[in-house]
Amino acid sequence: MRLSQFHLATVKEVPADAEIASHQLMLRAGMIRKLASGLYTWSPLGLRVLRKVENVVREEMNRAGAVEMLMPTIQPRELWEETGRWQKFGPQLLKIKDRKEQEFCYAPTAEEVITDYARNELNSYKQLPVNFYQIQTKFRDEIRPRFGVMRAREFLMKDAYSFHLGQDSLAETYQAMYDAYARIFTRLGLKFRAVQADTGAIGGNASHEFQVLADSGEDAIVFSDGSDYAANVEKAEALAPITPRPAPAAALQRVDTPTQKTIAEVSALLGVSPTQCVKTLLVKGRDGLVALCLRGDHELNEVKAGKLAELPDEFALADEAEILAATGTRPGFIGPAGLPDTIPVIVDRSAAVLADFVCGGNRDGTHHTGANWERDARITRVEDIRQVVEGDPSPDGKGMLHLARGIEVGHVFQLGLKYAEALGATVLDDQGKAQVMLMGCYGIGISRIVAAAIEQRHDEAGIVWPEAMAPWRVSVCMINPKGNPEVAAAAESLYQELAARGIETVLDNRGLRPGAMFADMELIGIPHRVVVSERGLAAGTLEYRARVDAESRAVTRDELLGLLD
Amino acid sequence: MRLSQFHLATVKEVPADAEIASHQLMLRAGMIRKLASGLYTWSPLGLRVLRKVENVVREEMNRAGAVEMLMPTIQPRELWEETGRWQKFGPQLLKIKDRKEQEFCYAPTAEEVITDYARNELNSYKQLPVNFYQIQTKFRDEIRPRFGVMRAREFLMKDAYSFHLGQDSLAETYQAMYDAYARIFTRLGLKFRAVQADTGAIGGNASHEFQVLADSGEDAIVFSDGSDYAANVEKAEALAPITPRPAPAAALQRVDTPTQKTIAEVSALLGVSPTQCVKTLLVKGRDGLVALCLRGDHELNEVKAGKLAELPDEFALADEAEILAATGTRPGFIGPAGLPDTIPVIVDRSAAVLADFVCGGNRDGTHHTGANWERDARITRVEDIRQVVEGDPSPDGKGMLHLARGIEVGHVFQLGLKYAEALGATVLDDQGKAQVMLMGCYGIGISRIVAAAIEQRHDEAGIVWPEAMAPWRVSVCMINPKGNPEVAAAAESLYQELAARGIETVLDNRGLRPGAMFADMELIGIPHRVVVSERGLAAGTLEYRARVDAESRAVTRDELLGLLD
Repeated sequence: MRLSQFHLATVKEVPADAEIASHQLMLRAGMIRKLASGLYTWSPLGLRVLRKVENVVREEMNRAGAVEMLMPTIQPRELWEETGRWQKFGPQLLKIKDRKEQEFCYAPTAEEVITDYARNELNSYKQLPVNFYQIQTKFRDEIRPRFGVMRAREFLMKDAYSFHLGQDSLAETYQAMYDAYARIFTRLGLKFRAVQADTGAIGGNASHEFQVLADSGEDAIVFSDGSDYAANVEKAEALAPITPRPAPAAALQRVDTPTQKTIAEVSALLGVSPTQCVKTLLVKGRDGLVALCLRGDHELNEVKAGKLAELPDEFALADEAEILAATGTRPGFIGPAGLPDTIPVIVDRSAAVLADFVCGGNRDGTHHTGANWERDARITRVEDIRQVVEGDPSPDGKGMLHLARGIEVGHVFQLGLKYAEALGATVLDDQGKAQVMLMGCYGIGISRIVAAAIEQRHDEAGIVWPEAMAPWRVSVCMINPKGNPEVAAAAESLYQELAARGIETVLDNRGLRPGAMFADMELIGIPHRVVVSERGLAAGTLEYRARVDAESRAVTRDELLGLLD
Repeated sequence: MRLSQFHLATVKEVPADAEIASHQLMLRAGMIRKLASGLYTWSPLGLRVLRKVENVVREEMNRAGAVEMLMPTIQPRELWEETGRWQKFGPQLLKIKDRKEQEFCYAPTAEEVITDYARNELNSYKQLPVNFYQIQTKFRDEIRPRFGVMRAREFLMKDAYSFHLGQDSLAETYQAMYDAYARIFTRLGLKFRAVQADTGAIGGNASHEFQVLADSGEDAIVFSDGSDYAANVEKAEALAPITPRPAPAAALQRVDTPTQKTIAEVSALLGVSPTQCVKTLLVKGRDGLVALCLRGDHELNEVKAGKLAELPDEFALADEAEILAATGTRPGFIGPAGLPDTIPVIVDRSAAVLADFVCGGNRDGTHHTGANWERDARITRVEDIRQVVEGDPSPDGKGMLHLARGIEVGHVFQLGLKYAEALGATVLDDQGKAQVMLMGCYGIGISRIVAAAIEQRHDEAGIVWPEAMAPWRVSVCMINPKGNPEVAAAAESLYQELAARGIETVLDNRGLRPGAMFADMELIGIPHRVVVSERGLAAGTLEYRARVDAESRAVTRDELLGLLD
């Protein structure tokens, strides 16, 4: 591509409303332009990158035996009613009435339509397993779209859905998708982790998220340094300490903590470590309040807690009035010792092995010291309800956990019977008996990957594309082509040779001064830059610099070709 | 592709609600499945064909120097208000409210968004000309979606928009697009005509429609047998007869035609040719009724008439009460001789050269014979207001016109200033002065092409794909592979050799009986079929049949490869 014929539109200013690096750089590089809240136009430059990602995803899906199809973006209410998701999906579902007042939605995902397709098209176990996928525009009416295409309303997604008789078949395709995803992100040149994920409200048996690692990532993930264990922090198990609980050594005492309500304040006042304190959260359970006790330095894992029988999936903290009514005490002074018998006390594994600990005194302005389980404080049950922390042992017993931040770009999920059951999608098995099919679903956020890659790979000068995602692999820049026809001719000749070798190259023939030209090529992240200049021609060399290099160096044409092949 | 791993879903029954061949065959071949009115899922088979078309379009757009981008499907009301199209587009525009009650539409076309993009991104004449295009899902809320993907509500369209300073630049890009379109339809293997089209309500300077020829086509087109003139019938000029009007020879007489109201009835009763009659239509003009006079065998061209100064663009016939009030006569007996002076009489060129003609008597139950213009009947103006007919002279003076039916699959249009003016899209010219840009727009209905091709190319057995659109070029069928491992092995080997040569091949390894297998391959329209059988292997031959051949023939492997290369 000759840049004079390409509509490149870089800008110098950092856009005021762009908060994160990828959003800023995509706007500065001119990859996207905002049309309205959460709606972006992909410029020619941006689309080149988007298509690279799309093509890698398509190739690996095909290689894994999935078959591509295309479902409408606009889908009828009736189908979404059959699974109950017309209501359940909430206001993220963009609802539409057509000219005849029929109701539709702009699909955020396509389980209903593909299951409807499957119940019509699949009749026999002989047609299974099958894995359908599409690469199609989706819409989620986010309440607060932000971060550019990272959390846009309209976005490009690859969604796949597999159908099976039998869990073994589902597990096999699930693994094939897992492997395909690993190949996709590896080919794209991204650092990523596949982490065990919570299956959430959908239920189902297994789920992995594919996370592109980036310090700015919204998701916290953990991984082991001694095995390939990796999980979403919500999912990661905190093992029970191997050391048993010491016997009580101290007596229970009430101490005054008139204004000290937090663990930090109390431990500072009393001169004890937060690890020797127990914090008690009162939350709203299915039948009244529930106490959750954690070691003072630990945080509650709400997903784990949401699975307790006593709590609804999404639970809330009790408010001050409720706490006062139930305990006669204000928040900040609640503890397990002396709580009313009606309140179940769920104790985290790490808190359960403490002895002689500090906790709230259940009387305003006081705490206890020397508290001990059983003797002073009731335990209804010991559970894993905390967030893991850096240094925790890996749940598989191998190595230590480390924390990282990630951006979720893919998700594989064993759905099981959920949708097929709701829609009555059955096939005849080898006995001629109708069986509900098992399903898996497998999503990749194509447009999100573009932003995630930039979050992981950028520097002060701009984007640092991996080769597979770059709009072009190589830029050929010419210095003062109007003053030096030989420079222009040599650059053109090099450009044509690279193109002939199948190396995607952009020729910057816009006639900008070198500084502006180089700044553009760095901003848009071209992996390899070659400069053709009068001085270089005289010396028989070209100036080469990889995007990741600090300095450029002189190379011969043959050396250059060797570098790029 | 091995068919056992592909989800092929042909059906035998002709679907009840499919009226035209392409709709029937796309359903029977399992290319599409209906989700809701005007909404179709493209199956794996259908999508293969759709992508072929899409790729040819993309390649030729790129070759013609257009740059691809991608605009959101969901677009804000504010932009559509700026051009007035939020209202003007009518109920075909699918309007949507998001969770914040902001209004949007699902774009049926993208002039507003691209012009907004251009006004933000283009500042200087140096950036022009530029031709942006996208291949994106569109939506038109048709009142009566029908004919499958031929007139669906959600469809895939390529839309391009070029920006210019100066008409010459616009004309040049217009021509480049015209040429690209011709290459696209030629490469796709379709018989087509580029016809001059009416520029309609949009105005603008030039417009061509690309029509795929098919007897079932909705559009009537004309073309010359003596030149490359071709036009939409709405646009085709009917030249004035070269013979002048004869002098009057007969006297005006009133004759009784008590129940004869139509030209057919009157000419039969009086024993004269319809070509010797004048029919008079009273229509509602801007200021009262207007009379339109045509030769008895000709039809009114409403587009031409809509351009008369006396008439609105979309006009209606006067109803019986209005005619009676204005003339004292009922419809069927109106004629130009003796019409009230307040009614303008617009006479078609062919009617204007008649002498001694028959026409309505302006008194119930009577007609005139021997009527003559000027002497008996006033002429306000002579105009071209009729539909051309088979055998008319070509408007360019070369050859004779012939009629054909077509399906509009592409449209190129010189928009001129319309959108850029409404949205204030200007650039600085070489004098530093702001100038409104000229625009062209260029559309191709990607999904419609698939249906149009089938309308043009099918037979009783099914679809007859041109090579460029076929899901696969070649099918390799194996007879009784389970009983003959050698047959299966030979077919597999042939399949692999063809694939290695880059020939897209499908191996039918489903183990169907030959009749069912062949019927499927004919129904889905594979251009070349090769059968591997025990008998053939013994004779060292393969059985080859092109989809268009009546019979198959024995060929050697080398002959086959020669045929397919």
